[in-house]
Amino acid sequence: MSSIKPKTLKGFRDFLPKEAKKRQFVINTLKKVFESYGFEPLETPSLEYEEILLGKYGDEGDKLMYRFEDNGKRKVALRYDQTVPLARVVAQYQNELPMPFKRYQIQNVWRAENTQKGRFREFLQCDIDTVGTTSPFSDAEIIEIAATSLKTLGFKDFKILINDRKNFKNIDKKAIPIIDKLAKIGEEKVKMYLKEEGIDDKILEKVKNMPITEDLRNIIDLLEKLKIDKSKVEFSPTLARGLDYYTGLIFEIEIDGYSAGSVCGGGRYDNLIGLFTNKQVPAVGCAFGFDRLMEAMGEFKLFPADLQVTKVLVTVFFPELLDKSIEVCEILNANNINQELYLDPSVKLEKQLKYADQKQIPYVVIIGPDEAKNNTVTLKNLKTREQKTVIKEDIKDLVK
Amino acid sequence: MSSIKPKTLKGFRDFLPKEAKKRQFVINTLKKVFESYGFEPLETPSLEYEEILLGKYGDEGDKLMYRFEDNGKRKVALRYDQTVPLARVVAQYQNELPMPFKRYQIQNVWRAENTQKGRFREFLQCDIDTVGTTSPFSDAEIIEIAATSLKTLGFKDFKILINDRKNFKNIDKKAIPIIDKLAKIGEEKVKMYLKEEGIDDKILEKVKNMPITEDLRNIIDLLEKLKIDKSKVEFSPTLARGLDYYTGLIFEIEIDGYSAGSVCGGGRYDNLIGLFTNKQVPAVGCAFGFDRLMEAMGEFKLFPADLQVTKVLVTVFFPELLDKSIEVCEILNANNINQELYLDPSVKLEKQLKYADQKQIPYVVIIGPDEAKNNTVTLKNLKTREQKTVIKEDIKDLVK
Repeated sequence: MSSIKPKTLKGFRDFLPKEAKKRQFVINTLKKVFESYGFEPLETPSLEYEEILLGKYGDEGDKLMYRFEDNGKRKVALRYDQTVPLARVVAQYQNELPMPFKRYQIQNVWRAENTQKGRFREFLQCDIDTVGTTSPFSDAEIIEIAATSLKTLGFKDFKILINDRKNFKNIDKKAIPIIDKLAKIGEEKVKMYLKEEGIDDKILEKVKNMPITEDLRNIIDLLEKLKIDKSKVEFSPTLARGLDYYTGLIFEIEIDGYSAGSVCGGGRYDNLIGLFTNKQVPAVGCAFGFDRLMEAMGEFKLFPADLQVTKVLVTVFFPELLDKSIEVCEILNANNINQELYLDPSVKLEKQLKYADQKQIPYVVIIGPDEAKNNTVTLKNLKTREQKTVIKEDIKDLVK
Repeated sequence: MSSIKPKTLKGFRDFLPKEAKKRQFVINTLKKVFESYGFEPLETPSLEYEEILLGKYGDEGDKLMYRFEDNGKRKVALRYDQTVPLARVVAQYQNELPMPFKRYQIQNVWRAENTQKGRFREFLQCDIDTVGTTSPFSDAEIIEIAATSLKTLGFKDFKILINDRKNFKNIDKKAIPIIDKLAKIGEEKVKMYLKEEGIDDKILEKVKNMPITEDLRNIIDLLEKLKIDKSKVEFSPTLARGLDYYTGLIFEIEIDGYSAGSVCGGGRYDNLIGLFTNKQVPAVGCAFGFDRLMEAMGEFKLFPADLQVTKVLVTVFFPELLDKSIEVCEILNANNINQELYLDPSVKLEKQLKYADQKQIPYVVIIGPDEAKNNTVTLKNLKTREQKTVIKEDIKDLVK
């Protein structure tokens, strides 16, 4: 007998069915939206040669990356994001990929983050990117898809903050991440931090008064053509985004009433994808914060009530009546109604009902000796606790 | 400019959209079947404490496992299969899980296999398991689901080989893996290998003449009740399955005409799931060999022809006509037809058409000055190369 305590690593999670079903709902919804715009799935390996990933995410990234030597003494690293692997794919299969290349990718990434900050070490990323064109339409489309995704998930009120990273061209690099925090920490603190870095705090006013660039104006015009609700789009001259690989449009989407941070962000990055080739490859894309989306969905009660997999539990009154129960399963099955036959006819009915309750199965069918004789079944609604005896064949219409 | 060669590790794979779409098709089909029987999804972390996994898969497993020290000096290992994590989950959340616990799990596992044998080091496993009951119905249900899965994927002719591992109780342990290979290597070689191990080769005849156990008879009766095609089920007394954790039913499914090996296998294992608890927890389940399934699907041409994500490419004749193209996109979108607007209006029409060809998009819409004036569009079928000019609004009915 093992004395090993069953436990998971800090920052790593099990998703039991209740949670896993919610995750699948969000993933499937996103996929459907992405595909309706012609984005196609891409999968890359969890492990890459270390040299592919190293140095691409700054010192912080190198530190947080899961790196090790494999059994063949190769230096390998676990996927840290989905953008560098995309760059590798674009270089490796350049003659096979259609251009523009519109792909989505929904896979786990691993980062040895400080878990005390509520961060996870394994988490799902959902990315869409368009590679190979500088057309402002591709910028607008990414924002459109992000907005459509949120709307399809059920979010009504959100704000799309947009800016042009080119506005920061002549701004002291050290000032950018400080100014970016304006909305979070307020003007006073921004000025304080600027001073601490020896930067004149007048720079804040300068950035706040930056005009909309022509490129951004173009994108906004296209968003209007695409009928994106104008009131949702807001020019935010202090928005900078953390990563400094952006070269044009940047945007973040915040959900009204959800304060943990933006649920989606992205922008144009024309110099990153060409990393492994000898030419510049323009790209624009965005990533959804999956854990935040899940949290916000929960807070706003946006998960459908019927995520239950099983609609009907068909109980077995006693072993001799198993055949009668199987008949009901067949009727439900023929009508594409997810059903379960209780697996052990020797278990008492009471325990079978408890199983349905635990699994939140909405309906239970009971076929006792009377029902068997009369070709009826007793249907119990576990939510209302009502039950009625009905003609066997009618069951399919009553549980829909 | 980076001089790093873009490449993947041996045994690891990129799945470009064409392949990724096929994978999604198979995954979604399996999920749907699993859920129709009340199986629910479970996700476990990619990384576990090494001690959770170590020693559970024999010496071979310990050797092939990806193990390393994380940044916090914890000894960790990448998921090697989905059964030991299931055992951990069952122990860790025993009060939260409904019993019987019917779960499916479709995640990657990692094994440092010899890639020269055509094996992969990262591959998808698809498992279904029922935990917490010894009822023969749970055995029969697993076989039923496996058969339904294959039928739903389009396989017509396959054989379900079944046996009872208890028949091997008094057989020399070293003889079992040799006898298991009978179908693959033939009687002569089995006898030779037995002799090499110093085992009397009469044991082969003895095993071949083993009778069906009562337990197996029960399961076969239930399969009949469940209307599983009798001719597909075959008692195979020499079937042993590699892993020696099985305690009762064992089975493998072979597809007629696909010779690379069984595509699904499993059985009852009543002593493994209790690994991390102090009690015995019975279980039965099976795993699909995803890569083999994919290969067999390809060989039998079972992938649907319309796995294309995008149904219609709406081209842009020249930038001034962009609005007209957007209008067509809106019509298609409102009718749930996946469409793409070509992203760069400055690109020549010819190149836009080439993009549609590359992406195997079946239809292309062209709106030139004449069409714009007459409120028509030209619809081109890229397969037949036919094209016709039609009323704009009619487009939605012509591409379905």
